[in-house]
Amino acid sequence: MSKQIVQIVKIGGNVINNEEALNSFLKDFSEISEPKILVHGGGRKATEVSSAMGLEPKMINGRRVTDEATVEVVTMVYAGLLNKKITAKLQSFGCNAMGLSGADANCILAHKRIVKDIDYGFAGDVDAINSEIIDVLLQNKVTPVFCAITHDKNGQLLNTNADTIASEVAIGMSKLYTTELNFVFELKGVLESIDDKDSVITAINSEKYEQLVAAGIIADGMLPKMHNCFNALQKGVSKVKIGDASLVKNSTKLYTTLSL
Amino acid sequence: MSKQIVQIVKIGGNVINNEEALNSFLKDFSEISEPKILVHGGGRKATEVSSAMGLEPKMINGRRVTDEATVEVVTMVYAGLLNKKITAKLQSFGCNAMGLSGADANCILAHKRIVKDIDYGFAGDVDAINSEIIDVLLQNKVTPVFCAITHDKNGQLLNTNADTIASEVAIGMSKLYTTELNFVFELKGVLESIDDKDSVITAINSEKYEQLVAAGIIADGMLPKMHNCFNALQKGVSKVKIGDASLVKNSTKLYTTLSL
Repeated sequence: MSKQIVQIVKIGGNVINNEEALNSFLKDFSEISEPKILVHGGGRKATEVSSAMGLEPKMINGRRVTDEATVEVVTMVYAGLLNKKITAKLQSFGCNAMGLSGADANCILAHKRIVKDIDYGFAGDVDAINSEIIDVLLQNKVTPVFCAITHDKNGQLLNTNADTIASEVAIGMSKLYTTELNFVFELKGVLESIDDKDSVITAINSEKYEQLVAAGIIADGMLPKMHNCFNALQKGVSKVKIGDASLVKNSTKLYTTLSL
Repeated sequence: MSKQIVQIVKIGGNVINNEEALNSFLKDFSEISEPKILVHGGGRKATEVSSAMGLEPKMINGRRVTDEATVEVVTMVYAGLLNKKITAKLQSFGCNAMGLSGADANCILAHKRIVKDIDYGFAGDVDAINSEIIDVLLQNKVTPVFCAITHDKNGQLLNTNADTIASEVAIGMSKLYTTELNFVFELKGVLESIDDKDSVITAINSEKYEQLVAAGIIADGMLPKMHNCFNALQKGVSKVKIGDASLVKNSTKLYTTLSL
């Protein structure tokens, strides 16, 4: 018997920062008929709250360091404000959403990133997904909505990359379901030229990926995203797509499909 | 067949404000062998965050008015920071806690308080408890941890009294379980004299309650708490107790038991 499909959708900061775009996305997401899981990033709000509270962002090599004050702020903003606003909005669209962090029912266990050269503070790397309890929720027609906060089972909350969470949740659920992972962001897909928003590379396999990296077409922030995509495919996720919000509506043919 | 017991425990701000007291309470709570539900209030942190963000608390007749900025802050602090810290801590004690707001899986549906004389803003009055999904969690050995944020199913989050949430959750679960409701606060129980912390009135029924109110012994903040206690008893909750954190350890005989 073929396994049931579950759609895992990750939305990033750019969708979250624009309330109208977010609501329109959530409406479309709520209409996905298959079992589904949403993973959301953080957006601008954590920075706004931090600076309103007079906290200075601490950066090393252009990367944010999660000190104790920062992990408190991101927990407030991601697991509190954004997660519950998204959940309440989905509820208003008839989707029985349940907002969760990794600490909740031990859904996503992580450890504080090992210090090599740089101590990124309370940044979490994912160890395990509690697919059994997530399955219980899906079986009861509940739609889990994950923010990018995890825990270490020793009482410490950890700030974790939302793309990684989406990828790891999809991998974890692959034991029980046929999983399809969708990364929704502000562009229509991986672009041949950043100046031409329609220059979507519709299919990328491992070989093509190496060429695109060598040519400098895939660079910077796209590198870890692509790493998460290929990691998911290697570990049992059936389909990975990258595109804009119309991906969820199935109303576009312009997006990037990844394959091994 | 007699129904299984579920313990509902509510902790207030004074336990939450003191990290050592909170951790000690959570350790004891995690050791309750029966299925259990925790409800937590807010504590000082929301006021701290509000003032750090430069928001002025808006009060009418000594009661806080929940304007839009305030409902954002309490959602951040109650549903985000406190709820996830408590959940992560319980996880560290081996209790499979899941932090939830009323919006999550529509667990607690409310409506914005009807404006009579005073508009208290985004304050929620509870309409319904989704006991079915809470039961699914309990059956799967998950311990729900509720903060005092609800929603109206139209996308609006609402600030709600935590005592009321505890009482309504206990009432809601009474359909399926024998429910015992425990209000844990800074005192050993309802006191005969506020100056004598050991002057606990160990048993209060409706008749005695009226006498205590008439004598001015029960007044101010204890009045709505007692209302929640009697409301719970009238609507199917089996036992209601008020006491300090030792109530949960079963190590004290000094607490107040309510009866009709």
